[in-house]
Amino acid sequence: MRLATLSHGTPDGALILASRDAQRCLAATGIADTLQQAIEHWDAVEAPLRALASRLEQGEGEPLDHGHLLAPLPRAWQWLDGSAFPQHGELMQKAFGLPPIETDRPLMYQGLSDRFLPGHADVPLPSEADGIDFEGEYGIITDAVPMGTPAGHALRHVKLVLLINDWSLRAIAPVEMKTGFGWVQAKPACSVAPFAVTPDELGEAWKDGRVHLPLEVTLNGQWFGHPHGSEMAFGFHDLIAHAARTRDLVAGTIIGSGTVSNAGYASVGSCCLSERRAIEMIASGKPATPFLRFNDRIRMEARGGPFGSIDQQVTAVR
Amino acid sequence: MRLATLSHGTPDGALILASRDAQRCLAATGIADTLQQAIEHWDAVEAPLRALASRLEQGEGEPLDHGHLLAPLPRAWQWLDGSAFPQHGELMQKAFGLPPIETDRPLMYQGLSDRFLPGHADVPLPSEADGIDFEGEYGIITDAVPMGTPAGHALRHVKLVLLINDWSLRAIAPVEMKTGFGWVQAKPACSVAPFAVTPDELGEAWKDGRVHLPLEVTLNGQWFGHPHGSEMAFGFHDLIAHAARTRDLVAGTIIGSGTVSNAGYASVGSCCLSERRAIEMIASGKPATPFLRFNDRIRMEARGGPFGSIDQQVTAVR
Repeated sequence: MRLATLSHGTPDGALILASRDAQRCLAATGIADTLQQAIEHWDAVEAPLRALASRLEQGEGEPLDHGHLLAPLPRAWQWLDGSAFPQHGELMQKAFGLPPIETDRPLMYQGLSDRFLPGHADVPLPSEADGIDFEGEYGIITDAVPMGTPAGHALRHVKLVLLINDWSLRAIAPVEMKTGFGWVQAKPACSVAPFAVTPDELGEAWKDGRVHLPLEVTLNGQWFGHPHGSEMAFGFHDLIAHAARTRDLVAGTIIGSGTVSNAGYASVGSCCLSERRAIEMIASGKPATPFLRFNDRIRMEARGGPFGSIDQQVTAVR
Repeated sequence: MRLATLSHGTPDGALILASRDAQRCLAATGIADTLQQAIEHWDAVEAPLRALASRLEQGEGEPLDHGHLLAPLPRAWQWLDGSAFPQHGELMQKAFGLPPIETDRPLMYQGLSDRFLPGHADVPLPSEADGIDFEGEYGIITDAVPMGTPAGHALRHVKLVLLINDWSLRAIAPVEMKTGFGWVQAKPACSVAPFAVTPDELGEAWKDGRVHLPLEVTLNGQWFGHPHGSEMAFGFHDLIAHAARTRDLVAGTIIGSGTVSNAGYASVGSCCLSERRAIEMIASGKPATPFLRFNDRIRMEARGGPFGSIDQQVTAVR
């Protein structure tokens, strides 16, 4: 089933279910008012939500007002973003002459979670000089995960799957990374495609804790890339176990895959400007593709996937 | 005034005001149910809360049940921890032969904010082998801070001041730091002393965006250190401006000073084991003080300060 959140004058919005054709919806009122509530009581609400979803597929429902959709979880208690596609890291290291990050553990940082932007809303940022970049990635929402949960028991905690644009400011990122403290300024709020979907909604495309779909990105209407979600070195179950090693994960934790990136980047392209620039630097000594300018438009969609699209412009903070 | 949160069967608890002698309290019901609500509507609730506080000082109120106090903000949408005491960084770098972190910017990472532990509750952690350590520090809670707020306008956003124990796992910290992604496993939930106080409650001890009080730490009843909060290289106004450079700060953002540390460490001691071990390494080539064992007890209090104490034991996760 496909869950979404309708703008409602409150920070958490109102939970709705959307039909598979994204044309109709039914409010989840009486079952769970918000997606956060649903995740906190998933075992109790899943069956009634699925009953609602099947009524939708039988033709019930109101017209879905796409213009009023928020991020599925408009704010979360925790956002942990991985970097699980090794090809991305290798290209960045090669282009910038960095030493490889020597670790057999997943890479992960804690990011801003007090707001997630709608996939179709403008994104206000302070300066083009910050090196504005997008990062297309997949993500999951977990229920409560006890500290010490091993990877082998972690997949059952994946309740919903997401498509995310992790906005990044590349002029600041290496400065913050060099301190070892991770990113604060370099990682403003992410945008999220409108539908949070249960893993079964992905069918065969959900296996090994990975989303086996190409993530198609266009920039100002031009093809930019369509790398495939299958090439994660660690699956989402591994990322959950990593995150829960020394903490209980709160219900509603969002975990990201990091920028989708493939070994066959020469033909499938990339999901972020920084990686394309790295490829250009390796090939010709310098990057040719600029970072984003205000009013540039970025579009992301998982080909054949159920998440809906991200389609938005970067704007200057007023 | 001194705000606190009483356990109430809900994640956010119930907001109360405590008397200066910490013996009595009055519920803030009807003004703001929770501290998060109060922070979101500070301009409207401050005057009625102050009226309640003055009734308390005139002798009204119920006996304060210290055993049912939670962290003042039991969960927050954002926790950004600085490392603003340069002496701490210098000692760590010297002891471990690390290159100095070359930056003229404040150091800051985003940490776990979905729960803050009560200052008098046991702290369950998975393994003594992780190098369990405490970090005594001061913190602030802000109201909503617009992106781009300069340091010169930031102090007005400091609504409350805190005393925090930032639990740290030292065997994991350098491994995560080396990736540049910052800490996830090395930084489990923090503990917080019971009273969140308005800056005026600190009197002369609140100036230049710093808490001018010694932070006294005892370990298993033995003196450990009492470094002074004044030696921050950046004040909290600088930390706010740094955090808000590329994001709006949500109301209820907690910002930490990092471990309190002084140039005169030889006489005032430290606020974390890791720093004492660094001092031992510099003096004699190896550390003598072990990290915490389960059932070790740590106590923190700002001398002459209004925060109440942190007094708790580390235990094994069941």
